[in-house]
Amino acid sequence: MIRFYNGKTLRFDGGARLTDEEVWTDGGRIVYVGAPREDRPAFEREIDLGGDLLLPGFKNAHAHTAMTFLRSLADDMPLDRWLSEEVWPNEAKLDAEAVYDLTRLGDLEYLSSGITASFDMYIHNEAVAQANIDCGFRSVFCSALNDFDKDVENIEREYLRFNSLHPLIGYRLGIHGEYTTCLERLEYLAGLAEKYEAPCFTHLCETKAETEGCIGRYGLTPPQVLDRLGFFRYGGGGFHCIWMNGDDIELFARRGLYAVTCPASNLKLASGVAPVEKLRRAGVPLAIGTDGAGSNNALDMFREMYLVSALQKVTEGDAAACPADAVLEMACVGGARAMGLDDCTDIAPGMCADLVVLDLRRPNMQPENNIIKNVVYAGSKENVRLTMVDGVVRYERGEFFVGESAERIYEKARAFVRKIGA
Amino acid sequence: MIRFYNGKTLRFDGGARLTDEEVWTDGGRIVYVGAPREDRPAFEREIDLGGDLLLPGFKNAHAHTAMTFLRSLADDMPLDRWLSEEVWPNEAKLDAEAVYDLTRLGDLEYLSSGITASFDMYIHNEAVAQANIDCGFRSVFCSALNDFDKDVENIEREYLRFNSLHPLIGYRLGIHGEYTTCLERLEYLAGLAEKYEAPCFTHLCETKAETEGCIGRYGLTPPQVLDRLGFFRYGGGGFHCIWMNGDDIELFARRGLYAVTCPASNLKLASGVAPVEKLRRAGVPLAIGTDGAGSNNALDMFREMYLVSALQKVTEGDAAACPADAVLEMACVGGARAMGLDDCTDIAPGMCADLVVLDLRRPNMQPENNIIKNVVYAGSKENVRLTMVDGVVRYERGEFFVGESAERIYEKARAFVRKIGA
Repeated sequence: MIRFYNGKTLRFDGGARLTDEEVWTDGGRIVYVGAPREDRPAFEREIDLGGDLLLPGFKNAHAHTAMTFLRSLADDMPLDRWLSEEVWPNEAKLDAEAVYDLTRLGDLEYLSSGITASFDMYIHNEAVAQANIDCGFRSVFCSALNDFDKDVENIEREYLRFNSLHPLIGYRLGIHGEYTTCLERLEYLAGLAEKYEAPCFTHLCETKAETEGCIGRYGLTPPQVLDRLGFFRYGGGGFHCIWMNGDDIELFARRGLYAVTCPASNLKLASGVAPVEKLRRAGVPLAIGTDGAGSNNALDMFREMYLVSALQKVTEGDAAACPADAVLEMACVGGARAMGLDDCTDIAPGMCADLVVLDLRRPNMQPENNIIKNVVYAGSKENVRLTMVDGVVRYERGEFFVGESAERIYEKARAFVRKIGA
Repeated sequence: MIRFYNGKTLRFDGGARLTDEEVWTDGGRIVYVGAPREDRPAFEREIDLGGDLLLPGFKNAHAHTAMTFLRSLADDMPLDRWLSEEVWPNEAKLDAEAVYDLTRLGDLEYLSSGITASFDMYIHNEAVAQANIDCGFRSVFCSALNDFDKDVENIEREYLRFNSLHPLIGYRLGIHGEYTTCLERLEYLAGLAEKYEAPCFTHLCETKAETEGCIGRYGLTPPQVLDRLGFFRYGGGGFHCIWMNGDDIELFARRGLYAVTCPASNLKLASGVAPVEKLRRAGVPLAIGTDGAGSNNALDMFREMYLVSALQKVTEGDAAACPADAVLEMACVGGARAMGLDDCTDIAPGMCADLVVLDLRRPNMQPENNIIKNVVYAGSKENVRLTMVDGVVRYERGEFFVGESAERIYEKARAFVRKIGA
């Protein structure tokens, strides 16, 4: 058992609120949250927070983790050339071993940013699973059915396999995007959703061209097309959700679909700014993703949280738009719910011990006028003192504890880049 | 003398370029840049970069440093209420002692972000100067003439005093803004510029209302009004520069005026996005500022650099806009030139020893496909290993060396907030 004491604890039972409770974990679970007690068990470790902040980990609700190898490999070029000249040719060179190493590099970066789970859409999923298990990192995969898949039935096999493989691994149904998936395959996935009564996810309304293309093909927006096919009958949601109209927003609100916003990637690829404040006011559940390091280029929830709020303020022309506590809830709670991690949403007995300690004794956190606003508007990776996943400390004061040295993981990533001559 | 060796050095002689040269400093100056030599002097300290990156410090080209006390004190509210209900009433409670303490808090945050100089517009300048001198931090003040000033001639006295007070301190002429300064006072400042053949700066075209108000008053945009008065005869520039038209951009290019962009503050106050790429293509010199912690709320050049580039990509609809090397040059070189720090622009013999070491052995800097892009698109305060100002290490691996403990500076800031009952 591990004890966190002498700090502040951020709880989400009915909105973000700070308490001075201490927290005990046992194995992968939180077992006590409350006042200090005389009848204490023998702890394996007692962590003096020294006034620092304990909070549920951030959830990265849209990721292509192994794209770390594409970081800064090609930037400052138009999206179509970036995809066709750099991303796709280089991704074709990936094998399972490379995906394993590159996923581990991404996991290190997540841990350094207080991220405790990823909603990961990529290839070579056996390797992705093994990398996350070996790192002790939580991940839910999302299938990415598209017209290039040679083995469509693999999705159902993966769905069954990864949802029973390991407590750290999960799997949700998804397509890459309407624009890369023919009607027959869309219907196939909707059929799987019906069979398993499962939610479905997809890249959605990321670019104007994608959205207009769908309207040209079907006379409907991407959310409307997918909904008509039964894709969202058991929930799910979309990644990016930039080019959505009022009807799309209403559909998301009515069905309780998750809009996962990825603001840093959307800016950098010149895709646009998602209407997060309009979605929020309509009651759409929200979550935040980093997208891949090929487009972002950082896997940094602090940057994303700041952007989610600040971009809404400027696009709505309203400095009051998208307040800090709502954004923090998207990062800690909304992402978990989107991924089906309903036991990773709070600091409470029975919840998973996926926890982060933020160092408040750094200049960017002072004075402590409002700790939640400090975290969302001024926080940085420098504030991440400790990241625990499934009850195990995987990152603390700059050091990683993932079964292999960070330097060795870096070296493997560099070796792969050298090998492919990128 | 101090030696930096075994790393990469970023030089700006004709654009950003990386070398493997080592660097020696002596007192406040760089004395050698080149290959390792046999005839080495006895160094006071030899710093093994271990492959890390040595670069000229970032310059924060627009700041109100002591506004640290307003961080997260009021956010998520409209700009007019924020100013009238929170900023102005609380600033009225500041005295010299508070400004001294709060400036030191800001300096800590600058050092933690690799910032080695600030272009600071605030009140109680004697206290600001002493705080920076005591921290060993470089600062150039900008006067902020406006209609509320009771002692207009103080600007000339400050101009003379602070330009000869201490090697770390400088002073430039400026007004708060056209919209807060009557014509008579604008003419007074233009007269001072003429007398001292000095450049002039101002908040400029920050909001649409400010810009339209000026057109209503004078039939001209703020840059055009000020230029007609002779304000820019010896150069200078503007802070923010959002609502500029083609003529304004042409004026800035023709006169070599600095456009200082503050993207994080501009988003958060819903002011808009500056046309940085249009300014850049027109040949306007550019620099980057954090603005004050009341609006930003972080003093973090990594966040600003990312935003400068990413916001241009999305507003121009062009992922190739505002490339990384141009942004890095704005942060390291452009800011220095705007502030008149022409000997803080490069790593070269004779230049000031204002240097930063960035830790490249963090996950966000791997693999090293392109170090400059990694820094601009993925960098974070976590990468700042060391910050040296004027030849003295003021920050290293999380520790500050500014003559007083960080905790004591935090406590003074908290005490001031308690005292004013904010």
